[in-house]
Amino acid sequence: MRYYPDPAGGVGLSRLNRVIEEAFAEHARGMVQMPPKVYITLKEGDFRTMPAYIPSLGIAGVKIVNVHPENRGKGLPTVMALTVLLNVETGLPYAILNATDLTDLRTGAAGAVAAKYLSPRRSVSLGVVGSGRQAEAQIQAIAQELQVREVLVWSRNEKNATHLCERLDLPDCRSASLSRVCGCNLLVTTTPSRVPLIRDEWIQEGTHINAIGADAPGKEELDPAILLRSRVFVDDPAQAVHSGEVNVPIRMGLFSEGMIAGTLGEVILGMKKRMRPEEITIFDSTGLAIQDLAIAAIALEGQEGIELKFP
Amino acid sequence: MRYYPDPAGGVGLSRLNRVIEEAFAEHARGMVQMPPKVYITLKEGDFRTMPAYIPSLGIAGVKIVNVHPENRGKGLPTVMALTVLLNVETGLPYAILNATDLTDLRTGAAGAVAAKYLSPRRSVSLGVVGSGRQAEAQIQAIAQELQVREVLVWSRNEKNATHLCERLDLPDCRSASLSRVCGCNLLVTTTPSRVPLIRDEWIQEGTHINAIGADAPGKEELDPAILLRSRVFVDDPAQAVHSGEVNVPIRMGLFSEGMIAGTLGEVILGMKKRMRPEEITIFDSTGLAIQDLAIAAIALEGQEGIELKFP
Repeated sequence: MRYYPDPAGGVGLSRLNRVIEEAFAEHARGMVQMPPKVYITLKEGDFRTMPAYIPSLGIAGVKIVNVHPENRGKGLPTVMALTVLLNVETGLPYAILNATDLTDLRTGAAGAVAAKYLSPRRSVSLGVVGSGRQAEAQIQAIAQELQVREVLVWSRNEKNATHLCERLDLPDCRSASLSRVCGCNLLVTTTPSRVPLIRDEWIQEGTHINAIGADAPGKEELDPAILLRSRVFVDDPAQAVHSGEVNVPIRMGLFSEGMIAGTLGEVILGMKKRMRPEEITIFDSTGLAIQDLAIAAIALEGQEGIELKFP
Repeated sequence: MRYYPDPAGGVGLSRLNRVIEEAFAEHARGMVQMPPKVYITLKEGDFRTMPAYIPSLGIAGVKIVNVHPENRGKGLPTVMALTVLLNVETGLPYAILNATDLTDLRTGAAGAVAAKYLSPRRSVSLGVVGSGRQAEAQIQAIAQELQVREVLVWSRNEKNATHLCERLDLPDCRSASLSRVCGCNLLVTTTPSRVPLIRDEWIQEGTHINAIGADAPGKEELDPAILLRSRVFVDDPAQAVHSGEVNVPIRMGLFSEGMIAGTLGEVILGMKKRMRPEEITIFDSTGLAIQDLAIAAIALEGQEGIELKFP
């Protein structure tokens, strides 16, 4: 058994997008095992246990990930993750990965795959709401799939938006007002908001939106009116209803599971799609255990790790 | 974060029985979080993911454990387990334990606690069916709670029974026929059988039975007729119905969930009990995630572990 303290360093983003795409396709084919995430509630946060098995990639394991919003004041990340991989022939645990950065990357990759299939344009102006690690992961992954002409970033603290642009090696990236950002034809929302920040009137026809921030009951970023005039795709219907962007509108009776147009996997397989260039599409991402396995599979390549005595 | 390659060595069995008893009591009080085990089916076996949180012990985490019967031919244990512990304040994973031996010990401790409360005698003749690691764990844990006058062991291979007795430091331990073993007034069954090995006519009034072997759908060790004339306690009703000794009789319509007399935790709290000295009692053990956390809590004391860089 080996421990990998920093497995994110060697992950090639273009290759990552392909393996994430393959994992979603296998999900839509019904060829993976992925029970619902299991939540345990702690005092000031929670942790989620995410087991899965992807036979076509020969990979099985469990991600364990916490969410503790108060951790920043304690000098710890809000989200920390470990992935344990088990040999699919013998059940032997053979790898433990520090999966905190991998979690950001695999979520970015899902957004990139969604944008590749659902954006009606190959060349986009990219609006990003939020300026944290997920904002960066989305921009970099999307830039592998589409030509990004410009990036407009909104952050509650404008400095953070500027800093994000400085970190990125992209031609035209700048801070902008929320309404300007939402006027882009590809929009990514990455905040932990519990109120709909994004107003209906800001969203133009033909926009594709990656709604990434909502990943727990009570979280939402978009005015539900946007959902009602959009074609809404999800990563997994059960998880989306429980904790995705659609969870609050569904609980309020404004939206229903039956209104979900399909899954990202079904889009990849061509079973579902954007119907017209002028319609709005939304990808509601909650994060799947199969994404964690797919990125782990390629993260270990070329990594040494630290040998641990087991069994 | 630290890795503990051999945390079982320092576990005191008497202390272990007490912390396992406390965990079961908290379970009966409704003061733990323990979602059902999640099963993933691999090619030649499966693995189970077992998250839990015991606030009174300040411990939360996940055990990941496989079952691969074909592993012996590959030089690997059938069952291998890892436990990951998370800080209950921050969600930080702070310990990874090699939990293979701990799994044996915590199951033995549950049997000892059940025998302490449900055996009508303080001094017992102990019959043990099977001669593997769990047989040994049960005998040693029970010897902490009751005076064990003699131990009779049955194994399909008699040599293994003799070897088990040689390993144990007990006054009177010997191999015996299955019917003789089943005539003891405290009986422990620890085989992976899928047919009822234990015949109804062998079991005397006043016997207490720890039914340990059945831990997956399709497994059973006892003639269902024994269940019908016994008071049957379980560790957890949902798990027992799914995979415990009662799972096959329930599926065959011979037994029902409503016939379960109560849980071990309820027995510890005095809410349920053996009613008469001459009745037969059964403890149907499937193994709970809270047992894994309870033993982890004391296993780490005094252990150094290996420092791993995280987050």
